[in-house]
Amino acid sequence: MPREAIVDSRQEILRTAARLFQQRGYDATSMNDVAAALKLSKGGLYHHFQSKDEILFEIMNHAMELTQERVIAPVRSIAGPEERLRALIRLHLEVVLSPRDREITVMLHENHPLPPALRKRINARKKEYIHFVENLIADVQKADSQKDPHRSSQTTGRVSPRAAAFALLGMINWIYQWYKPEGELQANNLIPQFTALVFGGIL
Amino acid sequence: MPREAIVDSRQEILRTAARLFQQRGYDATSMNDVAAALKLSKGGLYHHFQSKDEILFEIMNHAMELTQERVIAPVRSIAGPEERLRALIRLHLEVVLSPRDREITVMLHENHPLPPALRKRINARKKEYIHFVENLIADVQKADSQKDPHRSSQTTGRVSPRAAAFALLGMINWIYQWYKPEGELQANNLIPQFTALVFGGIL
Repeated sequence: MPREAIVDSRQEILRTAARLFQQRGYDATSMNDVAAALKLSKGGLYHHFQSKDEILFEIMNHAMELTQERVIAPVRSIAGPEERLRALIRLHLEVVLSPRDREITVMLHENHPLPPALRKRINARKKEYIHFVENLIADVQKADSQKDPHRSSQTTGRVSPRAAAFALLGMINWIYQWYKPEGELQANNLIPQFTALVFGGIL
Repeated sequence: MPREAIVDSRQEILRTAARLFQQRGYDATSMNDVAAALKLSKGGLYHHFQSKDEILFEIMNHAMELTQERVIAPVRSIAGPEERLRALIRLHLEVVLSPRDREITVMLHENHPLPPALRKRINARKKEYIHFVENLIADVQKADSQKDPHRSSQTTGRVSPRAAAFALLGMINWIYQWYKPEGELQANNLIPQFTALVFGGIL
């Protein structure tokens, strides 16, 4: 069976390309390098993707799909605002720390300039997610002030849902800069700590 | 007067190179591009820097100098732990948002693999800064539990200084990903909001 029949999945190409881009840098990695790492002919690779920019776009798009499937969709199915925000922090952290998908999601932060039409599509999805987080934080603050109107008048309103959303996404998305799989801080302690920090910060 | 005499400052080269690296990507920018943007001959540029890696290293090193001068040094001169942490958040945000230095500091997050010896030196300085922030947070938590031993027993210990330091640096360093000079969120509202979020989160 030819090797090319085995590499039937575009996802395997995206995963390998993402790994090479991180090891060598995006610009320093050629289509030839990607093909060679997959034991594909150059023609076999171009059959799936017409350019390196298309691969980068598809990696970013796949990362946003992962966010949609593993964070946004499950969070939407939860009823209470506080539980939803807790779930969002946990699920987003799990995606970012997932050994299988880390190389894909990290590429969302690659600042190589994509062709404007492609860049626009990725940015639109990123913005949608930011709004989703922002609305969730607003809902949690609202629910909290209804629970305890006296306390809320003193403390809510200090951190806007928008600033809090950027802070939350920053602390989670920044993890790739310092995370070590053998380090002390892992999902099981990061999840409760970041959750406590965010809830303490917004309420 | 030859143009080369005007460009006497290594800093101007670093600033221009940083801008080009961000516009075009690090790998896609050649030493020729940097020289041309400065109206320098290639020889003139190589007189200052022997390679593009050296330029990238010096940009990163300069960004860490800025952190040393504008954040760490002033913070060290402040007495109370709470005031120190407040100052750190404000000063770090101001460096990140500074129109003059933004292009320099953003390059700290460039993930192009530097030669190991250079990478090590940058990472050592980054680690030093993380420890500085971590110790500051620990001091604030300690001071707070001495102020109010009852409250502290309920709430402190939930967020470790280390996790909080990474969260704080993440939310500030991430700003370059969404910041717009014409946007609603600027230093004057980001500083109080991020400060409130961090203090609410760690205490």
